Amino acid sequence: MTVQTRTTKVGFIGLGIMGRSMAAHILKAGYELHVYNRTRSKTDDLIAQGAISEESPGDLAAVCDVVITIVGYPADVEEVYLGLDGLLAHARPGAVLVDMTTSSPALARRIANEAADKGVAVLDAPVSGGDVGAREGKLAIMTGGDEAAFEAVKPLLATMGGTIVLMGGPGAGQHTKMANQIAIASTMMAVCESLAYAEATGVDPERLLGVIGTGAASSFLLNGLGPKIVARDFAPGFFVHHFVKDMSIALEEAERMKLDLPGLSLARELYQKLVDGGFDEEGTQALYRVYTGFTSRGTTG
Amino acid sequence: MTVQTRTTKVGFIGLGIMGRSMAAHILKAGYELHVYNRTRSKTDDLIAQGAISEESPGDLAAVCDVVITIVGYPADVEEVYLGLDGLLAHARPGAVLVDMTTSSPALARRIANEAADKGVAVLDAPVSGGDVGAREGKLAIMTGGDEAAFEAVKPLLATMGGTIVLMGGPGAGQHTKMANQIAIASTMMAVCESLAYAEATGVDPERLLGVIGTGAASSFLLNGLGPKIVARDFAPGFFVHHFVKDMSIALEEAERMKLDLPGLSLARELYQKLVDGGFDEEGTQALYRVYTGFTSRGTTG
Repeated sequence: MTVQTRTTKVGFIGLGIMGRSMAAHILKAGYELHVYNRTRSKTDDLIAQGAISEESPGDLAAVCDVVITIVGYPADVEEVYLGLDGLLAHARPGAVLVDMTTSSPALARRIANEAADKGVAVLDAPVSGGDVGAREGKLAIMTGGDEAAFEAVKPLLATMGGTIVLMGGPGAGQHTKMANQIAIASTMMAVCESLAYAEATGVDPERLLGVIGTGAASSFLLNGLGPKIVARDFAPGFFVHHFVKDMSIALEEAERMKLDLPGLSLARELYQKLVDGGFDEEGTQALYRVYTGFTSRGTTG
Repeated sequence: MTVQTRTTKVGFIGLGIMGRSMAAHILKAGYELHVYNRTRSKTDDLIAQGAISEESPGDLAAVCDVVITIVGYPADVEEVYLGLDGLLAHARPGAVLVDMTTSSPALARRIANEAADKGVAVLDAPVSGGDVGAREGKLAIMTGGDEAAFEAVKPLLATMGGTIVLMGGPGAGQHTKMANQIAIASTMMAVCESLAYAEATGVDPERLLGVIGTGAASSFLLNGLGPKIVARDFAPGFFVHHFVKDMSIALEEAERMKLDLPGLSLARELYQKLVDGGFDEEGTQALYRVYTGFTSRGTTG
């Protein structure tokens, strides 16, 4: 299938919607790719394309020079990296491990420190750009950790991303992603409240978006998700439950730093209502439901 | 000076930063322009350019076919339109009056109704685009009111604006502007909280803006005011006290409609702290001070 043109052996753990597209780019770029996923069937496509299946994170770590992970929650990151059959216990000396999960900055620092003691580098490198960015290989990759390790894996990251930036030491990638999610949180309230107000007054919401979407109120979310809200299209681009996870991590970190972020707190509170209402598998634009008493008809995908 | 090429006699009331630029465009387009301002000295420049000074709103209304107003607060609008020596008491039958102040939708409807009884049309037509948009004649003009009156004055509005839209009946222009300000309110929290978090973690804020300013978190305000916040440049593009006025009007209207807008409420609460702290003459980006205990050094202009 693919002609192997590179000597670096790459491992990939976490073949969800994002991970599958990202791993496929690595394979296409000519790397030998070893894959592991908790749900085994998700590796089938990649194995058909030439990837090699591994039995556990530890088995995968034992044969790879670089390992990429993108799993669900901080608890999953902790298990994959620090578990008995995890990456740190079996990584080769000199290996570079890259966690692309959106996860806790504090956990990223802890893992990087434990890894350094074993002569292994761990970078935190969460992404933005969603499933489309992953498919097109144009993710923004926000990296924290050792500079030499970053430079070593940059060509590999470049198969998946457009913007690839080292933001600082361990945890700085996660902090950057948190700052991104914090900006999104209150902007989503902005979009929903503006549209809820307009619709309540009887102003045509599409005409409204046409006017305010070109000026000071405009944003990627207003212009991108505003029309979906008007159409009551709540299908997920980014899941409510993932966003709640991200906001919760950001609030924990802010509390640790004694930083009060009332907009973020309010946004999480409103999104929690969505979760409680059973809408956690919808997209983040479903926040609009909170403003209409959850009565909006809507499609979920 | 200017060659008079048009027969419509235009009045202009309110020669603040915005109004002065807007009136100058009307004059340059060849209209006979009559001006009135509470502070008389503000009319000097326009009179030197050929405008005709009037002693009161009533005097001005008595000689004009179209009158444009852009004053400070709803109370000023009320006085100029409904006062004893105001526009409605002296407007010619068939005149079109256009209030471009950002003001109360309820007041706009009241004025339009009272005017209709006298055979006078009043449009509400607040703008966005700020002092730069006014100077360049590229304002967005969001209009509510009678369609025939709108079509009649559209060429005049076109001397001041780029996007000129009729949004609906009386009040619809103000409602659209309110929806715009509601979107801005929570987006400003988004920008400030994202940067406050990043700076607290030690992530370089300029590098942060470079990364998150291209993706889902990006907005006109993040990309435009973010760098000013990082530089602690709080000079006004749009005054805090004007924004508080706008948010207060929007909240009143929302309450009237029994619509809960918690993000907007929170934003007004935070901006009120700025006012209480004596920062009401700074720009809206000064909201950042609230997140740093008002200790940010900063320039105010």
